[in-house]
Amino acid sequence: MKVLITGVDGYSGWPLALHLLARGHEVVGLDNFVTRRRVREVGSWSATPIPSFPRRQVAVREVLGKELVFHRGSLTDWEFVRNVLSTERPDAVVHLAEQRSAPYSMIDVHHAVTTQVENLTGTLHLLYGLRECCPGAHLVKMGTMGEYGTPNTDIPEGFFDVEFRGRKDHLPFPRQAGSWYHWSKVFDSGDVMFATRIWGLRATDVMQGVIYGVRTPEITDDRLLTRFDFDETWGTALNRFIAQAVLGLPLTPYGKGEQKRGFIALEDSMQSLTIALEHPPSPGEYRVFNQFDAAYSVNELAELTARVAREFGLNPTIDHPPDPRVEAEQHYYHPLHDHLLALGYHRTRELEEVVREIFHDLLRFRRRLQARRHVVLPTVQWRMPDSRPLLAARHPTAPAPPSENAPESPPAGSPTA
Amino acid sequence: MKVLITGVDGYSGWPLALHLLARGHEVVGLDNFVTRRRVREVGSWSATPIPSFPRRQVAVREVLGKELVFHRGSLTDWEFVRNVLSTERPDAVVHLAEQRSAPYSMIDVHHAVTTQVENLTGTLHLLYGLRECCPGAHLVKMGTMGEYGTPNTDIPEGFFDVEFRGRKDHLPFPRQAGSWYHWSKVFDSGDVMFATRIWGLRATDVMQGVIYGVRTPEITDDRLLTRFDFDETWGTALNRFIAQAVLGLPLTPYGKGEQKRGFIALEDSMQSLTIALEHPPSPGEYRVFNQFDAAYSVNELAELTARVAREFGLNPTIDHPPDPRVEAEQHYYHPLHDHLLALGYHRTRELEEVVREIFHDLLRFRRRLQARRHVVLPTVQWRMPDSRPLLAARHPTAPAPPSENAPESPPAGSPTA
Repeated sequence: MKVLITGVDGYSGWPLALHLLARGHEVVGLDNFVTRRRVREVGSWSATPIPSFPRRQVAVREVLGKELVFHRGSLTDWEFVRNVLSTERPDAVVHLAEQRSAPYSMIDVHHAVTTQVENLTGTLHLLYGLRECCPGAHLVKMGTMGEYGTPNTDIPEGFFDVEFRGRKDHLPFPRQAGSWYHWSKVFDSGDVMFATRIWGLRATDVMQGVIYGVRTPEITDDRLLTRFDFDETWGTALNRFIAQAVLGLPLTPYGKGEQKRGFIALEDSMQSLTIALEHPPSPGEYRVFNQFDAAYSVNELAELTARVAREFGLNPTIDHPPDPRVEAEQHYYHPLHDHLLALGYHRTRELEEVVREIFHDLLRFRRRLQARRHVVLPTVQWRMPDSRPLLAARHPTAPAPPSENAPESPPAGSPTA
Repeated sequence: MKVLITGVDGYSGWPLALHLLARGHEVVGLDNFVTRRRVREVGSWSATPIPSFPRRQVAVREVLGKELVFHRGSLTDWEFVRNVLSTERPDAVVHLAEQRSAPYSMIDVHHAVTTQVENLTGTLHLLYGLRECCPGAHLVKMGTMGEYGTPNTDIPEGFFDVEFRGRKDHLPFPRQAGSWYHWSKVFDSGDVMFATRIWGLRATDVMQGVIYGVRTPEITDDRLLTRFDFDETWGTALNRFIAQAVLGLPLTPYGKGEQKRGFIALEDSMQSLTIALEHPPSPGEYRVFNQFDAAYSVNELAELTARVAREFGLNPTIDHPPDPRVEAEQHYYHPLHDHLLALGYHRTRELEEVVREIFHDLLRFRRRLQARRHVVLPTVQWRMPDSRPLLAARHPTAPAPPSENAPESPPAGSPTA
């Protein structure tokens, strides 16, 4: 199968490319490297050193003996999207090329607009491109469990049976996102669902839980490492806690810390995406997978991190800074996740063992963490319309407003292999 | 009360300005005149002759003895939005400045992107502007009943009680829109709901039914007429049927014609918006009004139009061209609309008398209709990714792709009065 991965340079795009190549699939990637730039924008970098993309391609060739075809460009550029799809005619597209940080989207009006405009535009371009160039291709679109918010009921996978005033229907489950970023994912879901209906496209919409981890079995060489973000803007909760422990800082679950979320190990997220790809839906089918392995409160994760930290001679405390987000700090949380299990998903990594593995790697890169230790604590405030002054106070180069509405349009590049 | 109307040059923005001025409110308007340009883009114009905006202001002064302050600019321009809000500090904002045509959004990829990007960007800019300049102002945002689609249950006003797997919550009603335009309204609703939650803004989200009519009591002079669109792209069903009858063309309910929708007379829509303005919600409250008066099938409206047409010596037939949209042609439809009734809404115009009134006006402007008679029949096809060739075959100037992602950014103008 030929798979196009948009956002192939990213945290999950890169290990997915390695995993699919190792399984014998043909992989084409595209990226505009905007995440590398935006992580610099908030004064941070990846804890793991990441080679340039051409060097990544060389490493893939040398270590895996595989070719990874690459197109440099942005999904916000329609001609680029059409060129890539009509040239490559993939059997499936895994769409990971979106602005993926909730705090980034909450910095100020420009970051809010950029997030929603860029994500929507990229998805619409992909949908039209698929319709025009390869309508039978399977779109696997990365969404987030955060689309659902935290309702006081179980959370089904996308749809549920409704009874209202004596009549019944099977309808999309209500969405209640908690940031402009999370709303952009809700909007994407609407557009993808609609495109499958009017054009008969086939799509899997992945409500992804929070991913943790730094390794997959294919990462057998440091040149194949994926990025690992630990700052408040780009790092996810568990990854960030471990970085804090390595830095000798307190771990910081926000507020009461009883916020529960679904989590999944990087390797098992790759397993899930591969299952989706290898079991495509029918033409016209729009299916939703809640892609997480287990739900934990952030307190549970902080406590686990502190416990494992002690094995490494570290002794972190746990602080509870005021929650910068607007979210319930105590709530019911029970999302269903049967669709992947029915297709053969099984947990391959245990949480504690992955946490230990992350400690091993981060301790190796401790100096890269120390050089950016000021970016770990929260500054972006959900209740404020402009967090740039706070970011500026934290480090000398405050984020510049992204170029509004035309965020990334590098010239469409030729494929390189 | 000082009310800012965005999109004051439009079909409902203009009569709303007149109505609020006549009631003694202070009115400030803004517009970028993009609807005038886009109606030309599809080869059409308003059946009613519309003066330039400066002439409209003069007419308001002479006929109503009132001043209508105006700012020319686009909501996609953040500095313009902030300048207007910080200068004017309105008590309420009625947000009508969006791309409002479903067929326009379905022409091709560029029109899809422009519609969603422009509508989302404008709404986000307004929300941030309100937060920064006048957080107590009441935002009345124009949505559409089309956000809900046609579920097989009653449709509540925004929220409903859910019971799922033995647990209960009060959640947003699922949205299932039927065009990129309708989805853009769903997205707006999400953003407005979220802004009320994080910042304590107050908002009324109006799920507007299809508006029909050409007159309100304040339109006592032809210079005060509002625009009246009759082409397939910009005209709504009933308005378009009457134009077809005047032109001696068959009336064209699409497909089976049993699609039901909520409708409301222009004058009663103004009444509803005024009720919303004069009964604002509390800070932090997000409330939804289903703003329509009665539900009809398009067949019922076509039959009524044909019957009234005969009073005017016209004798239209009724055709059923294949439905260009993707929608259920027969379905259950029972939306609730109690919120406005509870605040004192009452029907002031009967459907048949408004239809008769529209015939009177359109017969006066018959020559303007005849000059553009080729734009009434459907060409934009929901199932096709690009309807530009069809539009081009219909009239010599096919729509050019709108400038992507930066649709309208005239320089922020100074207020004129």
